Amino acid sequence: MTKTKCKRVGILTSGGDCPGLNAAIRGVAKSAYYKYGIEIIGISNGYRGLIEGDVRPLKAKDFDGILTRGGTILGTSREKPFKPDGRERDSDAGSRKADAIIENYKKLKLDCLVVLGGNGTHKTAYLLKKAGLNVIGLPKTIDNDIWGTDVTFGFHSAVDVATEAIDRLHSTAHSHNRVMVIELMGHKAGWLTLYAGIAGGGDVILIPEIPYCIDSIVEHLVKRSNQGKEFSIVAVAEGAISKKEANLAKEKKKKHKKESKYPSIGYEIAKKIEKKSGMETRVTVLGYLQRGGTPNPYDRVLATAFGTAAADLLAMGRYGYMLAMRNNHVVPVPLEEVAGRLKRVPPDHGLISTARDIGTCLGD
Amino acid sequence: MTKTKCKRVGILTSGGDCPGLNAAIRGVAKSAYYKYGIEIIGISNGYRGLIEGDVRPLKAKDFDGILTRGGTILGTSREKPFKPDGRERDSDAGSRKADAIIENYKKLKLDCLVVLGGNGTHKTAYLLKKAGLNVIGLPKTIDNDIWGTDVTFGFHSAVDVATEAIDRLHSTAHSHNRVMVIELMGHKAGWLTLYAGIAGGGDVILIPEIPYCIDSIVEHLVKRSNQGKEFSIVAVAEGAISKKEANLAKEKKKKHKKESKYPSIGYEIAKKIEKKSGMETRVTVLGYLQRGGTPNPYDRVLATAFGTAAADLLAMGRYGYMLAMRNNHVVPVPLEEVAGRLKRVPPDHGLISTARDIGTCLGD
Amino acid sequence: MTKTKCKRVGILTSGGDCPGLNAAIRGVAKSAYYKYGIEIIGISNGYRGLIEGDVRPLKAKDFDGILTRGGTILGTSREKPFKPDGRERDSDAGSRKADAIIENYKKLKLDCLVVLGGNGTHKTAYLLKKAGLNVIGLPKTIDNDIWGTDVTFGFHSAVDVATEAIDRLHSTAHSHNRVMVIELMGHKAGWLTLYAGIAGGGDVILIPEIPYCIDSIVEHLVKRSNQGKEFSIVAVAEGAISKKEANLAKEKKKKHKKESKYPSIGYEIAKKIEKKSGMETRVTVLGYLQRGGTPNPYDRVLATAFGTAAADLLAMGRYGYMLAMRNNHVVPVPLEEVAGRLKRVPPDHGLISTARDIGTCLGD
Amino acid sequence: MTKTKCKRVGILTSGGDCPGLNAAIRGVAKSAYYKYGIEIIGISNGYRGLIEGDVRPLKAKDFDGILTRGGTILGTSREKPFKPDGRERDSDAGSRKADAIIENYKKLKLDCLVVLGGNGTHKTAYLLKKAGLNVIGLPKTIDNDIWGTDVTFGFHSAVDVATEAIDRLHSTAHSHNRVMVIELMGHKAGWLTLYAGIAGGGDVILIPEIPYCIDSIVEHLVKRSNQGKEFSIVAVAEGAISKKEANLAKEKKKKHKKESKYPSIGYEIAKKIEKKSGMETRVTVLGYLQRGGTPNPYDRVLATAFGTAAADLLAMGRYGYMLAMRNNHVVPVPLEEVAGRLKRVPPDHGLISTARDIGTCLGD
Repeated sequence: MTKTKCKRVGILTSGGDCPGLNAAIRGVAKSAYYKYGIEIIGISNGYRGLIEGDVRPLKAKDFDGILTRGGTILGTSREKPFKPDGRERDSDAGSRKADAIIENYKKLKLDCLVVLGGNGTHKTAYLLKKAGLNVIGLPKTIDNDIWGTDVTFGFHSAVDVATEAIDRLHSTAHSHNRVMVIELMGHKAGWLTLYAGIAGGGDVILIPEIPYCIDSIVEHLVKRSNQGKEFSIVAVAEGAISKKEANLAKEKKKKHKKESKYPSIGYEIAKKIEKKSGMETRVTVLGYLQRGGTPNPYDRVLATAFGTAAADLLAMGRYGYMLAMRNNHVVPVPLEEVAGRLKRVPPDHGLISTARDIGTCLGD
Repeated sequence: MTKTKCKRVGILTSGGDCPGLNAAIRGVAKSAYYKYGIEIIGISNGYRGLIEGDVRPLKAKDFDGILTRGGTILGTSREKPFKPDGRERDSDAGSRKADAIIENYKKLKLDCLVVLGGNGTHKTAYLLKKAGLNVIGLPKTIDNDIWGTDVTFGFHSAVDVATEAIDRLHSTAHSHNRVMVIELMGHKAGWLTLYAGIAGGGDVILIPEIPYCIDSIVEHLVKRSNQGKEFSIVAVAEGAISKKEANLAKEKKKKHKKESKYPSIGYEIAKKIEKKSGMETRVTVLGYLQRGGTPNPYDRVLATAFGTAAADLLAMGRYGYMLAMRNNHVVPVPLEEVAGRLKRVPPDHGLISTARDIGTCLGD
Repeated sequence: MTKTKCKRVGILTSGGDCPGLNAAIRGVAKSAYYKYGIEIIGISNGYRGLIEGDVRPLKAKDFDGILTRGGTILGTSREKPFKPDGRERDSDAGSRKADAIIENYKKLKLDCLVVLGGNGTHKTAYLLKKAGLNVIGLPKTIDNDIWGTDVTFGFHSAVDVATEAIDRLHSTAHSHNRVMVIELMGHKAGWLTLYAGIAGGGDVILIPEIPYCIDSIVEHLVKRSNQGKEFSIVAVAEGAISKKEANLAKEKKKKHKKESKYPSIGYEIAKKIEKKSGMETRVTVLGYLQRGGTPNPYDRVLATAFGTAAADLLAMGRYGYMLAMRNNHVVPVPLEEVAGRLKRVPPDHGLISTARDIGTCLGD
Repeated sequence: MTKTKCKRVGILTSGGDCPGLNAAIRGVAKSAYYKYGIEIIGISNGYRGLIEGDVRPLKAKDFDGILTRGGTILGTSREKPFKPDGRERDSDAGSRKADAIIENYKKLKLDCLVVLGGNGTHKTAYLLKKAGLNVIGLPKTIDNDIWGTDVTFGFHSAVDVATEAIDRLHSTAHSHNRVMVIELMGHKAGWLTLYAGIAGGGDVILIPEIPYCIDSIVEHLVKRSNQGKEFSIVAVAEGAISKKEANLAKEKKKKHKKESKYPSIGYEIAKKIEKKSGMETRVTVLGYLQRGGTPNPYDRVLATAFGTAAADLLAMGRYGYMLAMRNNHVVPVPLEEVAGRLKRVPPDHGLISTARDIGTCLGD
């Protein structure tokens, strides 16, 4: 076993649930524990566990056999110990929580904190780095919207679930001659809806990055119907917005707070399609199902690769990075590059053209 | 090839979409066509196609390779050509549609009409029988609520989908320490929710046949939480009602028309649990996904067995029956026994005891 | 909690691995433990664990969350403590093992032994009953060949796996214009191959109960090819035998011990088809995959129902039975009725006719 | 619709069956047909169809709804119209077939030939290019061994199937305390076994690129057993070779032709493990199942992206390329770069380190 300066690390999972968290924990732990002899402290329920000192050492049996399990053996929470802008550390609850984290980090004699999470998690990780802690981040999210990495673990598993749902809707849409609207996750980024929409053969795909015009959508659906197509599938990201809303938001220089009479965007789109086209339209909101279940093989491999790369950084004492996949290589990216940024679908992304080329309506 | 008196039959699928329809069509057609040389006329979109004369002969290539496909190659509709009580045949739209069916039946020189559908479909089938047509019915529905048969095709496929969804929720519930409510199909009968609830390890199962008391549910969930259980799953049928509603309905001698401020029962239950227990509660409405996709092997076998048994009845000229599975045997049941009746979960059903025995709360 | 005379039971799983074992253990344990306050002793690796005294008390956390897990938390073995005929208890190794079981049963102060297994397991259970022990059996096997019950748990899960495999073969067969042979489990009974063969749309289905004639098979395949069918699927049970072998066996009044030059029946059939028909033929032996993975919802419900029914028998002190599903009801069957018998597919089974009706060749 | 110089293209699928072929055909066809107005001629059964003139125009209904279907609507064959070295075009059968292809290409007035296939297919494509035809290739293979592209379509679908199989084996291995050997496809390249091995948590992974030493494998398995691990999984590529065989092959400057007494490498490895370790060892050969079934969402998206990119090349009249995915971008690669080369797993590939880091034995 190699000797390392890093002797003892804490590990936590933070933010929304996501397939692959356990695979990544296992990757970090197996490599750090067996190859480098590093002690692993499991921290419960994200940053909250570190604030409250809810920790336990992880032993071999803890991370044996968890590769295929959904969720996270450590639990998670959406605790954000810093205020959003990170400035007021000393004057508020945020600061007291951050102080508790720093205090417990020292009390536990950690050499580094390994955090598995999304954008919020890495924002906090960066602030903790600035506050003097050693931190390494692993990018997990079904939204695939973390800056600096080509792909996050959890994303392709969610694409699988969403695509399978669209596949199911096809048969029922076909039998009844309907428009089926399916609402998928993605408040700010449309990766999941774009991928699952193409994979599921969606006829209309609406993502936050491309504001939609309801008339274009209806025109497309009516044209399909006139061509004798018996049904249409509309895949819509929960954060999709109309051109009008987008313009309003731009004018006000801020996110337009929508006051909608509909439970969610899926229902709004469906109601408008039905009203304008007269076609029977039904809605499915996929919701939490997108986060659950065993990670797919792609995510298991990706999470394991991130995990072992994190162990290598620990062994080398290279702290302050998020692991990223770039051009098929796992590389470290400085946390300051990642924090506070969002990776949205660029308008010139190859799959946007692909979708248009096969005749998909993107709502614009 | 055996000679039969029955030379020419029409076949239609009616009512909600359901896995196994194509498998059943294939079963009828392969056997009737190859074994008995009967000509098969496919009728589009349920009874509507017969009203409108939208028909085409089915050839071998039409029913080859459809065993595994979801939906129905014939299309379906919820067209009900008779008034609900069937009495006013001569004075209304219902009658004109029924007349058109009878006329087209004769014009097409059909010897029998094979209908694949649920309760509504068989009600109509019985009325057509009374009106002099030869009819044979096959019991399809994901609800399993057709009187006279132990099981309908489509049911176990829907149980698979619903159970897989509950499995997915488990991981996300576990990670976040939550109550997850999942709303499943079943307006009047709780078969699907009972089976999937047990198969998915649901902690609370609410079905229309057992009116619930919200306080019992909350008590059960709080007790679980106090025992250190990190999450709970509540499976609720869309037709579940509270004891209060059930009593109101009984007093008024009719179904109590609920005016709810919630989009559906799942949201209502979740909101009340959250309010009374303080536990974070989330809702998933599974919706149309339960109807879609390929039939599972159980339903493919069942639908095929019903289909070939229907062909045998055709060959023998035994009309006026619905095929049923009774004690593992496929048997014909007279349509008059089936029409207008509903198979609900009896209070002394074995699975009710099973659920209670393993500690499941049934809401009462 | 109800008081019962039965205070303490041992539970073991024996024979081949099978989906649903954990679901059944959980069913027994949850009900016996919580409802009746019975202490549960887990016995490792089948009867071997009881011979060697490898046991541990099961606590709530042991059977929490195991509903969906494949395999068995107790481990299993094919240990048969009695000689096949059960007569020579006192003079051989068999007897010493049986003596050890009886001794440990008493030492552990068990009131009953609950065994989950197939035909061999129930044979032993019956001999233990004759030797004075209280025993209750639960019927598990992917082969569905246990006498006295309509269905065993594990069977429908295996049908799912086998059918999915046949579905996969369809696409590759179709693309290459081939005969695809798939060999499924089932030495003496063809239930699995019959169900999966029908569910997967197999063109030829060969089961041990219907000896085959290779020429009939080839004739059927050639006819299909001449009709322009681009491929054929042959589902064969590992215990399928030719008419010649069957006759030889009958003459010798015993199972004809085949000395084959082929690795298994699938290869033999394929080679002969290829030689006689000239059609490219490929083999897949599904093997252990049929035993693995999570139980399907049907088996989870069935295993749970058997488990809670076993707990009820324990509470009532009704020993000496195997639980069975008969005409949709869970009922106890005396072990003496079950022991040493085999449930094979009867020649007049409904699905045999169904298969023939849709044009499937059964090899005869 | 844009006007293009390319008016009419032929499309064929060649080589082994592979998920995603239909998705790619649809991608090419939808884009070429609707966007560019190019006429699409479907060629049956790979190059053989072009030799024999077995072609038909593809219409919209031909490529509608095929996105999710496994196999290929065009059929495929392993026809190689050129001799392996491509030199003797004029003197043999190879040449006459090639001549027929060229002749039919001209007779059909094709502006380009789009071929979907693996290494053999692209070798032929290059030779046809040299012979003066316009050709565009799309990289399909479950082996992922095509030079010039980071990934091929079909690969990740096969990884899914293989990983699911390993998942199933886990439960049965666990219950019986066994070594389970699973043999996966890959004669020359180990991508599939490496990915599925890591994704499935394989304890030993053997690929053609890393010759194995049976003693190292046994040592690893025995060590696991001594540590109390109840089972082990060995994933072996069908082309894995021992160090001894590798050395022999090197000496002879050519592939050592193995004369084995075992049906396949999986059986050989299993037998040796059992003999040397005494541990019960079982084999599963996954075989054709790896090629079948619906493409997973990853492959559907990839195949669609390749397909639309091919249509763009057609529209621009840029011929002589294979489409490739490089660093997340679809790019054209000249056929001469691809032909005759093989992409094997490089010894310094990141996943090799990943596998070692988590304690996997790679056999060396």
